[in-house]
Amino acid sequence: MRQEMKRIAIDAMGGENAPKAIVDAVLKAKAELPEDQFILFGDEAQLKELLPQDDPQIEIVATTEVILDEDEPVKAMRSKKNSSMVVAANWVKEGKADALLSLGNTGALLSCGIFIIGRIKGVARPGLMPTMPVQSSDDGFNIIDVGANATSKPEYLVQWAEMAAYYAEKVRNVRNPRVALLNNGAEYDKGDDLHKAVYQLLKDSKLNFTGNIEGHELLTGKADVVVTDGFTGNAVLKSIEGTASVIIHLLKDGLLNNGVKAKLGALLAKDALKTVASRFDTAKYGGAVLLGVNSPVVKQHGRSDARAVYYAVKQIDKILTEDLISAFKAEFSK
Amino acid sequence: MRQEMKRIAIDAMGGENAPKAIVDAVLKAKAELPEDQFILFGDEAQLKELLPQDDPQIEIVATTEVILDEDEPVKAMRSKKNSSMVVAANWVKEGKADALLSLGNTGALLSCGIFIIGRIKGVARPGLMPTMPVQSSDDGFNIIDVGANATSKPEYLVQWAEMAAYYAEKVRNVRNPRVALLNNGAEYDKGDDLHKAVYQLLKDSKLNFTGNIEGHELLTGKADVVVTDGFTGNAVLKSIEGTASVIIHLLKDGLLNNGVKAKLGALLAKDALKTVASRFDTAKYGGAVLLGVNSPVVKQHGRSDARAVYYAVKQIDKILTEDLISAFKAEFSK
Repeated sequence: MRQEMKRIAIDAMGGENAPKAIVDAVLKAKAELPEDQFILFGDEAQLKELLPQDDPQIEIVATTEVILDEDEPVKAMRSKKNSSMVVAANWVKEGKADALLSLGNTGALLSCGIFIIGRIKGVARPGLMPTMPVQSSDDGFNIIDVGANATSKPEYLVQWAEMAAYYAEKVRNVRNPRVALLNNGAEYDKGDDLHKAVYQLLKDSKLNFTGNIEGHELLTGKADVVVTDGFTGNAVLKSIEGTASVIIHLLKDGLLNNGVKAKLGALLAKDALKTVASRFDTAKYGGAVLLGVNSPVVKQHGRSDARAVYYAVKQIDKILTEDLISAFKAEFSK
Repeated sequence: MRQEMKRIAIDAMGGENAPKAIVDAVLKAKAELPEDQFILFGDEAQLKELLPQDDPQIEIVATTEVILDEDEPVKAMRSKKNSSMVVAANWVKEGKADALLSLGNTGALLSCGIFIIGRIKGVARPGLMPTMPVQSSDDGFNIIDVGANATSKPEYLVQWAEMAAYYAEKVRNVRNPRVALLNNGAEYDKGDDLHKAVYQLLKDSKLNFTGNIEGHELLTGKADVVVTDGFTGNAVLKSIEGTASVIIHLLKDGLLNNGVKAKLGALLAKDALKTVASRFDTAKYGGAVLLGVNSPVVKQHGRSDARAVYYAVKQIDKILTEDLISAFKAEFSK
């Protein structure tokens, strides 16, 4: 636990609803987090118009460039030196801020995390970890890595599992989190060489390893932490999001275009549909965390509204309060 | 195109609804397929009770064992020599039947396909290929491999793409099918070494290669054939099925447990929900085909009803009519 002021660097220009949604989120969060400092990086004129004057909790750092979603990540990080994201990352690197939040280009943010803020000594590869919903409760589960790495080695996955389990315990308050390995079958000898090796390493670790988990079990709540290689994790995360989106789209379409009877039905079924939507609402878990770098880096969805950004700010405050980075540094520099 | 009689070997004991659903499906299909012969392998007494006597299109082959879902695949194939699945596979191998259908243990069926029926000469590795639904039409798309191989090499994926594209064209009547590679980004240089190599090989092939596809785009109908390594494909297929199942479960739950208002809403919204369910009904596409073995081997879901089995029978008839195996043999033995 740390007591001093927490300074959160926020890329105010990333995402579809920037900077309005981001400013609104900060204004909502700051009252609840009186010991936090919010440093907003972005277009000075736009930010000044949205923010109250002389708020002691809020600082604006004027930047002149924005990294776009279509920009090539590493190239953008290197060439757009005065972009809101890169300047914010540099503030974190220089110790002028303690954590970084962005809704912008995921690849560029990963690059800023890995190349500017830097890997924790002893961590082989940082991994990206969102919190996903489960069917029967609001607990959710963590899955790591979902795409920071195209190629993975056994030792990476074990470190990801350790960091994610620690996160689940400290930030999500899950006691003795159940850790599972995403694999193509339940038995210990399933998978390719990578996953067979990881199974053994996790089995021999101090983690509460519960064995393999298969794709269809992910949302059932069978595990609190799922570890996977970055290639498979990326495909699985996007497939889950894509499937949920297609089904909800079809459902809305069917309800709206099937005449008066269906429209009436939809009105009446509204509460039930809301329950489903709320279970699949991942905004409440905050954003995806890049674990294994020297300061917390959180990526929230580009289409996030103020509410989603607010949860990401609260999430970062909790990560800083529990001082995860110091724990990781102590663990991996051994 | 082939003209002679088509003899379909059917494992009548596999799946939750065996043998009743399987017999019902055969009885429905046989009238529409007068030149097909159905050879049912299973418990003689049970089958005789369900089947009409002396039907010239139907033959029963008595077997005494059944491979269970919990059996270890290769071991079961080797030890349960008188099981409905193994005897049926041997009939195909010996030329007494032209194709194999089972609802049983997937791993065991893959083993029967690969080790008993055998690889086509020149095919490096057979791949398992289901047809999945797309959002905006009833066309669906094929995805290969979804789990016959835990480890994949570039040349496997290219052969799978070639076989799947041929299937899409001949069996699903898709003209010049669009072939895409499941990857972790849109650009040509995305992915690990395997997927980068496959991208180049597909680009240089005669296939209508449209580039990379990401997990969230799979159900959008952007591609007719998606090629992927067997490990990722397995995780993605199961994730899609799991997500759809969880959402539909939550929805039904919400509609039934939210009181009278929701129940009334559900009744009225029924047609709309049916539209969604029908779009996600994969039974109409038949089962998953093991491509690259010497005769068509089709796996239909273990929980299939008679209607799903009926579609798998029709699918096999079409595969035999279009003589896919001869085309593959000619192509890969070059």
